[in-house]
Amino acid sequence: MKTINIFGVTGSVGLSSVKVLKQHQDKFSVNAITGGNNVELLAKLAVELNAKYAVIANETKFETLKSLLSGTDIKIDCGKGGLLRAAEQEVDICLAAIVGYAGLKPTMRSLKYAKRVALANKECLVAAGELFIAEAKKHGCEILPVDSEHSAMFQCLQGSQNKQMEKILLTASGGPFRRYTMDEMRHITLKQALKHPNWNMGAKITIDSATMMNKGNELIEAFYLFPVSLEQIEVVVHKQSIIHSMIQYCDGSIIAQLGAPEMGTAIAYAIGWPNRLELDFKRLDLFEIAELSFEKPDEKRFKCLSLSKYAVKQGGTCATVLNAANEVAVDAFLKNKISFLNIADICEETINKAQSKNIIVNASELNDICEVDTMARQIAMTLF
Amino acid sequence: MKTINIFGVTGSVGLSSVKVLKQHQDKFSVNAITGGNNVELLAKLAVELNAKYAVIANETKFETLKSLLSGTDIKIDCGKGGLLRAAEQEVDICLAAIVGYAGLKPTMRSLKYAKRVALANKECLVAAGELFIAEAKKHGCEILPVDSEHSAMFQCLQGSQNKQMEKILLTASGGPFRRYTMDEMRHITLKQALKHPNWNMGAKITIDSATMMNKGNELIEAFYLFPVSLEQIEVVVHKQSIIHSMIQYCDGSIIAQLGAPEMGTAIAYAIGWPNRLELDFKRLDLFEIAELSFEKPDEKRFKCLSLSKYAVKQGGTCATVLNAANEVAVDAFLKNKISFLNIADICEETINKAQSKNIIVNASELNDICEVDTMARQIAMTLF
Repeated sequence: MKTINIFGVTGSVGLSSVKVLKQHQDKFSVNAITGGNNVELLAKLAVELNAKYAVIANETKFETLKSLLSGTDIKIDCGKGGLLRAAEQEVDICLAAIVGYAGLKPTMRSLKYAKRVALANKECLVAAGELFIAEAKKHGCEILPVDSEHSAMFQCLQGSQNKQMEKILLTASGGPFRRYTMDEMRHITLKQALKHPNWNMGAKITIDSATMMNKGNELIEAFYLFPVSLEQIEVVVHKQSIIHSMIQYCDGSIIAQLGAPEMGTAIAYAIGWPNRLELDFKRLDLFEIAELSFEKPDEKRFKCLSLSKYAVKQGGTCATVLNAANEVAVDAFLKNKISFLNIADICEETINKAQSKNIIVNASELNDICEVDTMARQIAMTLF
Repeated sequence: MKTINIFGVTGSVGLSSVKVLKQHQDKFSVNAITGGNNVELLAKLAVELNAKYAVIANETKFETLKSLLSGTDIKIDCGKGGLLRAAEQEVDICLAAIVGYAGLKPTMRSLKYAKRVALANKECLVAAGELFIAEAKKHGCEILPVDSEHSAMFQCLQGSQNKQMEKILLTASGGPFRRYTMDEMRHITLKQALKHPNWNMGAKITIDSATMMNKGNELIEAFYLFPVSLEQIEVVVHKQSIIHSMIQYCDGSIIAQLGAPEMGTAIAYAIGWPNRLELDFKRLDLFEIAELSFEKPDEKRFKCLSLSKYAVKQGGTCATVLNAANEVAVDAFLKNKISFLNIADICEETINKAQSKNIIVNASELNDICEVDTMARQIAMTLF
């Protein structure tokens, strides 16, 4: 029986993890679960999963949580402090699935108290990659990727030596606007951008997929998770999203991981590894798919991808700035304040301004990251 | 420095292995090499590879070999006895790449004297699977597959437990006649059949690919190499031959191995495992390929495939009979004595007649296999 915390249980990844845990109740004992705003769902899941703690990030919902869980043994907590207190409970596994930068602090904290962090909160690596990896090493905490692409890479690396890896082939659906001309991209609506061709995910990541910032973030993640140089990571547009990524080895052999677009598989691998948990999700039917295709990404139309490469090359907190700018810009786009193409423009411009203000530094502690993040957000907000 | 024997060095797989060994002369020391008929090439390779022994199977070429290698330190031998004597030399690795049933005895013998058999001689498993595997276990000899499909399966199984395997997805190019109607298949010429769309291989295996008997043989091989039932092996027609095979796991995840159509990769994996040998062969360019496709095989047009499944279901020496009949039939087709479709008909009819004569038995030793093989060949030869 392994103990597990689920951070962000009411989100898309969190709910997928619930499906997995329900198929393996004999193997996992749920300790703390946390949610952002959806207090009703949080309370319902706390009961269903027989959790010991339920934490609501939005403090104004605390009273509701209290009344929803009154008469149960489930302990409750709230706010940023509540998230950190949940992170400080010793568990075997912490599934870190809070969306965005908000997850950084509690996930970072959990590296000290959990034996393994199953990482879905990509901003930990995007905004604070170097620090995050160093902290995990310091505490001997395993980081297992939950993103389907990085899970694929990790699966394809099993039984092999890292030094035999020649290249990571990071696949990308290309999003809904893969074939749009630059002119068509000027008129993309929010509704169009929220419709991902293959995956059903949260709003933020769906927009990031449409701009390919998500792939840029994944490139940064891969850079920190695996011992490769930037040049060893190649983005391959593969519109069917069936191959979740590949590893090319020094003998020319390529190992790929394929699957249905089901987050549960990557979650199960991250919490079950080195074993594979049996799952009764629908199997991939290659005959139904019939065809897998590949093309090069267009970094002119999808500027976010080249910005993320630039951020890796720059090092320091450049990716922190990029991430902050993107979060601000996507939020503005979701609120219909800016156009689709503005997102990348704001990211680019924020990096430029941050550089001229010497904000891009080598972070030595989490506070440095937080300061840079705050300043970058302030810059980004002046740009629309 | 590992010592290695190469059986069938002048064949297609043998020559690929030479390309690999030339890239890794510091790791392997060539002991014996054997060839069937091409004595000039055998002598040339013996010198190039600095081999200790050179064996020509065709005894009438022995004097030529002697004169070609006079003045060198290379010891020479010939005939079936010579092959067996080569097999009895203790080495780290025996690369078994003799084409057809002729390789069975020497390869079987090498299981006792080699630490590892890198197996390209598929008839060992097709004609004598149970016995061959039992003999390898008895002597603690590792069998590593060299067929690109089985190498792919083996690669995809690295770092996983066999019991977590749900299914083997055995890919097949479908051969040059994948899209032919039954009527068009009646008029296939030898020249057409010898032209494989993706791989450059020997004549026998090229015809076997065209009839899909090769895929049937590989299905039988997979059945003996991996702990699966017949129902767990699915043939997937994948005309590009880029994915060399896949393993589906109990969590629905599929691991695939991809590569350029280059036998060297599988050979290098079999002799280098658990390490991957660096190879400077051309890398796969997914952008150039652009597309991978999948379809179900048509066992009506490609009857050899269903015959091989039937042989596995029957067990005993049924696959021995099928293999013998196919070797006779392909030989007859190569000599323009029978039509393309006759190959499968002769295989089917030979099995029927062998069953009515009670030739299909449970073999307890190699002689049983040899007897059944001889009888099956006699039957097959009466059928054209």
